[in-house]
Amino acid sequence: MLNISFIGSGNVATHLANALKAASHNIVEVWSRNPEHAKRLAREVGAGTVEYIRELRKVDVIIAAVSDDALTAVSHLIEPAQLLVHTSGSVPLEALSTGRRGVFYPLQTFTRDKAVDMRNVPVCIEAGDELDEALLRNAAESISDAVHVISSEQRKHLHLAAVFACNFSNHLYRIAELILQDQDMELDLLKPLILETALKVQDLSPREAQTGPARRGDTHVLNSHLHLLKDPELRAMYGDFSERIIKDHDHL
Amino acid sequence: MLNISFIGSGNVATHLANALKAASHNIVEVWSRNPEHAKRLAREVGAGTVEYIRELRKVDVIIAAVSDDALTAVSHLIEPAQLLVHTSGSVPLEALSTGRRGVFYPLQTFTRDKAVDMRNVPVCIEAGDELDEALLRNAAESISDAVHVISSEQRKHLHLAAVFACNFSNHLYRIAELILQDQDMELDLLKPLILETALKVQDLSPREAQTGPARRGDTHVLNSHLHLLKDPELRAMYGDFSERIIKDHDHL
Repeated sequence: MLNISFIGSGNVATHLANALKAASHNIVEVWSRNPEHAKRLAREVGAGTVEYIRELRKVDVIIAAVSDDALTAVSHLIEPAQLLVHTSGSVPLEALSTGRRGVFYPLQTFTRDKAVDMRNVPVCIEAGDELDEALLRNAAESISDAVHVISSEQRKHLHLAAVFACNFSNHLYRIAELILQDQDMELDLLKPLILETALKVQDLSPREAQTGPARRGDTHVLNSHLHLLKDPELRAMYGDFSERIIKDHDHL
Repeated sequence: MLNISFIGSGNVATHLANALKAASHNIVEVWSRNPEHAKRLAREVGAGTVEYIRELRKVDVIIAAVSDDALTAVSHLIEPAQLLVHTSGSVPLEALSTGRRGVFYPLQTFTRDKAVDMRNVPVCIEAGDELDEALLRNAAESISDAVHVISSEQRKHLHLAAVFACNFSNHLYRIAELILQDQDMELDLLKPLILETALKVQDLSPREAQTGPARRGDTHVLNSHLHLLKDPELRAMYGDFSERIIKDHDHL
């Protein structure tokens, strides 16, 4: 059982605090720029609140779940001997100024009112020394079955990969929606296929799971699709993706 | 209860024949280029086989689930008075030469040994006249809760949209995998996030569901990601997607 305090009261802080509380840790205090939000989260997890970050009591670990830009400034307000961790995919460990520092990065999109089963959420940890790494590993393993020690350099690439796999995929759904709406159809038509596409790569490698005209080398369909696309940007994107897929399956 | 025969014995034919059989239709005969495959499917659904397409008996509807290229040739072997439908996303109704013709297009990726709950699979139908449309609607509604009458023109765009939303998303998973492997990490790290991204748009519009540095206008992360990408193709793709996402959220 660890004593844990939070800086921040947004989605990440809320999900982590609740999961850690449910795993029998003691959530001691919450600070947030917005005192109302701090109070709400504190009530949820049986914690207190403080008005100033400097007032946070000494605990086993303080988790700072605030915007990337604010992390360094926040860390200057914490005693160097206090273990401070952040939850960001893109900020290096060194951005924190405390002597004891770490990262506790849950790889999931959190939406406030949507429960997430944290046991399946990968948690990437990093720490300045072995003892703090063990402490963070304990905390992470108490809420997740997928705990990974990931360096700052790896984490940057992991975040980049997530942008491709998730943020850009979501934008492809948006493009599909626009193509459909233009012809009086709804994205509903594609929702089962979108879900199946994501489910498929849970078991198969994306290369094995690849389907479609480019995968089959069906130039007839490829050309007719290029012909349908009036927007030059989308036409270029269609061509680039298709070429990449063809190349990826060329050397069989 | 309809009498239905199949030309083709691949994944689409197998899933449709089994679903229609389970919905109490009578699967009469199966023809396939590969006689062994025809026999296997015929056994599964209690049908007979024929050696030549011309030998297929008169039934309520023949479903031709073969490659796009073969459809026109196949249709020339069928009596004009026999209703013939194809299952393709990209072939117009007119590609079939029979007097009575239609489309029965299930919008899902089928993998042979993976059961699919057909009730959630959208089935897009189209027919040359009202009576055949009613017949196809009956057949479709007996296996699916999402039956849509879609014109050939709409269907072309639907297929195009599916390529963006599914085939290209899958390739983004592949790109993510390559970025991770380059840093000794596995795609496993991103699988829950990939699934959540597809689940999110089942309820939210893709525009509402959009997250990530481009959505937030976080130029610091955008620049550091561009800097990480050594492959000029991927750098260009990252820039294009990010610009499109920024534009899509600019006019708030």
